Amino acid sequence: MDRAEQFSGLGNRQVKKVPLLRGKTIINLFFENSTRTRSTFELAAKRLSADVMNFNISTSATAKGESLLDTLHNLEAMHTDMFVVRHNQSGAAEFIAQHVAPHVSVINAGDGCHAHPTQAMLDMFTIRRHKGQFADLRVAIVGDILHSRVARSQIQALATLGVGEIRVIGPQTLLPRDCQTMGVHVFHDLASGLEGVDVVIMLRLQLERMQGALLPSAREYYRCFGLTAEKLRHAKPDAIVMHPGPINRGVEIASAVADGPQSVILEQVTHGIAIRMAVMSMALGSQSDLQEAQS
Amino acid sequence: MDRAEQFSGLGNRQVKKVPLLRGKTIINLFFENSTRTRSTFELAAKRLSADVMNFNISTSATAKGESLLDTLHNLEAMHTDMFVVRHNQSGAAEFIAQHVAPHVSVINAGDGCHAHPTQAMLDMFTIRRHKGQFADLRVAIVGDILHSRVARSQIQALATLGVGEIRVIGPQTLLPRDCQTMGVHVFHDLASGLEGVDVVIMLRLQLERMQGALLPSAREYYRCFGLTAEKLRHAKPDAIVMHPGPINRGVEIASAVADGPQSVILEQVTHGIAIRMAVMSMALGSQSDLQEAQS
Amino acid sequence: MDRAEQFSGLGNRQVKKVPLLRGKTIINLFFENSTRTRSTFELAAKRLSADVMNFNISTSATAKGESLLDTLHNLEAMHTDMFVVRHNQSGAAEFIAQHVAPHVSVINAGDGCHAHPTQAMLDMFTIRRHKGQFADLRVAIVGDILHSRVARSQIQALATLGVGEIRVIGPQTLLPRDCQTMGVHVFHDLASGLEGVDVVIMLRLQLERMQGALLPSAREYYRCFGLTAEKLRHAKPDAIVMHPGPINRGVEIASAVADGPQSVILEQVTHGIAIRMAVMSMALGSQSDLQEAQS
Repeated sequence: MDRAEQFSGLGNRQVKKVPLLRGKTIINLFFENSTRTRSTFELAAKRLSADVMNFNISTSATAKGESLLDTLHNLEAMHTDMFVVRHNQSGAAEFIAQHVAPHVSVINAGDGCHAHPTQAMLDMFTIRRHKGQFADLRVAIVGDILHSRVARSQIQALATLGVGEIRVIGPQTLLPRDCQTMGVHVFHDLASGLEGVDVVIMLRLQLERMQGALLPSAREYYRCFGLTAEKLRHAKPDAIVMHPGPINRGVEIASAVADGPQSVILEQVTHGIAIRMAVMSMALGSQSDLQEAQS
Repeated sequence: MDRAEQFSGLGNRQVKKVPLLRGKTIINLFFENSTRTRSTFELAAKRLSADVMNFNISTSATAKGESLLDTLHNLEAMHTDMFVVRHNQSGAAEFIAQHVAPHVSVINAGDGCHAHPTQAMLDMFTIRRHKGQFADLRVAIVGDILHSRVARSQIQALATLGVGEIRVIGPQTLLPRDCQTMGVHVFHDLASGLEGVDVVIMLRLQLERMQGALLPSAREYYRCFGLTAEKLRHAKPDAIVMHPGPINRGVEIASAVADGPQSVILEQVTHGIAIRMAVMSMALGSQSDLQEAQS
Repeated sequence: MDRAEQFSGLGNRQVKKVPLLRGKTIINLFFENSTRTRSTFELAAKRLSADVMNFNISTSATAKGESLLDTLHNLEAMHTDMFVVRHNQSGAAEFIAQHVAPHVSVINAGDGCHAHPTQAMLDMFTIRRHKGQFADLRVAIVGDILHSRVARSQIQALATLGVGEIRVIGPQTLLPRDCQTMGVHVFHDLASGLEGVDVVIMLRLQLERMQGALLPSAREYYRCFGLTAEKLRHAKPDAIVMHPGPINRGVEIASAVADGPQSVILEQVTHGIAIRMAVMSMALGSQSDLQEAQS
């Protein structure tokens, strides 16, 4: 977060580009489509002066029957310094990291239901920017915790940073069974869960997985767990509202809240670039490089 | 045009790249496919040392149900400095310009039947290169004026530059009703319309909108409004022939003319890069930057 | 190869990028999909600091009825310095080279069954790295020689470099009729063909062209011409095993061999970048530029 703070200062539209990773080759290996994650990784790499190559795995040599590992080793043989990996299978980035040489960096940009570390980092960065610290904060995460790699990484990050209290709010069916051992407090009612919290993190309802007969449940979901201005009044008056995006207006969040004064949703996107620049430069460069670049 | 003249000088294959927009982020937001317009904007941005990201809206987060405005605000939150917008709806670029922050530039790269300003600018630049001035010129625009955003922008540009006479030539059904108020002279016969003109601008017949039973009309169209070497003889001997491309050989223009000595069609493409470099650098930089870069 | 040697030295992860082609515009014109060839050309261009634009011809203006030559001339008019061309028709790169201005470079990145020069060059470079010279070498090329542009270019390159002996190994139906005039020795039996060779080059079996009833022949092919550890024992103990990729494990090559100590398949990919940097910089720059960049 401290490193991201430095890059965030660069984002003042005066000096956005630094030569930290000049000559480094970064490959975006996206097996799953993702507008904002891929774009922010690409822009972060470009602002660090790296060479970036986007690699859409579906149009690749795997179509010619080459195995994923062979494709990977071929890309590695091109002197790639870093793979940014997005995959719908949990453990994909880990698997890839185990199969490339140790000096090649692998960044997990989201794997199945498992983890989305840079998203959680940018979320923590956004919270710190607004609240300054974590020890006294009550943070509520609302929605489909069970299937959310974002929530999983957020809970881990919040615990690591020693946050005061973590609450998860959602229907029984969308909460993991091991909530107790995770050290979080469980709520099935949105209003009571939001009582007195400093940070509200809404999760995306995966509408694309709901079809036909299931669609009415989106309306039902909104009635129970959609964040409206009225429900938000249960949180502290200066509570901030977060969402990893893309948002479903009128499903998990009301437009009045998403666009309202407590929303920091677009700030999260902005901070995403600073965080990813920090992660990339710390993996590939060294702190001294940065100081050199700035002096 | 004066600024483009400077960049055009750069295109002498010695020094093509200037660091004017280094650190600036430009997003090509193309909702409609366009080879030459997107490519020239991309190359113009790269030759100004900007970071460019091409954004194909159909494969984007809108597929996950995110609204266009949300996608736009997310891209804006990535500290984007400029959007280059192509859309099949008139007013799209204007709409986007109204919804981003004032310091973000929006360039219209063609919107529906409304306007295509940079195309008109590069056309004017091409005319000035060959004719030196506008006051004494007769310019004829031939074809489907009614649906052509290119023609609309050209007429506006020619009028602004005080051209001697603007003629539009086409069948009644493809001419706008308000030709009189536009200050143009209308011709339904190609030969008489071309009589004594200095510049002939052919428009593209949108063949892709004509199917099945309608296709014979392409032959009929060529017979009446196709520019052949014979028809071109009605224009001044040193008249130049222009076309925004892509051309339909044997539909609106004969190959002998498209490839002939009076054709400046490929020059238009070349000038497109200088004009777009000029537009981008004037929107994002300042005149002093350029002087600095050159001294 | 000497020039590639210099760039190969750059690939030591310390200094990968040189400003040799700064300001040059290179267009990858791929009419056929190819992961590793397009990627290595793209990375080679970026490491030479050129501006690269990938151009997928199927989504281009040709969809609007523009002819290939018109598209090409339009791209040329954008002050393109080099086209890298991949096409499934033999002679495509040659055809394009005949139709662009003489100062525009055209690199053949594979055309039909005809040639794949940079692949052969990187193969020669790989052989030289391991064997030091060519005069005393026995090289065997195994598989579908008849349809392989790679084999054709390799044979030409090996002959030019004065290799000791060239052998081709494959079923009668997959060997060209003019083998005798090509100065190669023909073998229909893998074991005898490999006897005492220094280099084994396996070709890819084009599985995507075999469907339905033909698929059993892949098993049959493997039994006769698949390179197993056992078969490889017929070659010299220090023989190297090469393959242009992507490999079909268990079809033309056993995994134990592809991943074994004699395999240099991934090295070929690495050398592909150095070779392509050499070809690009020699076509567009001059030797003195390189010396300047290094001093």
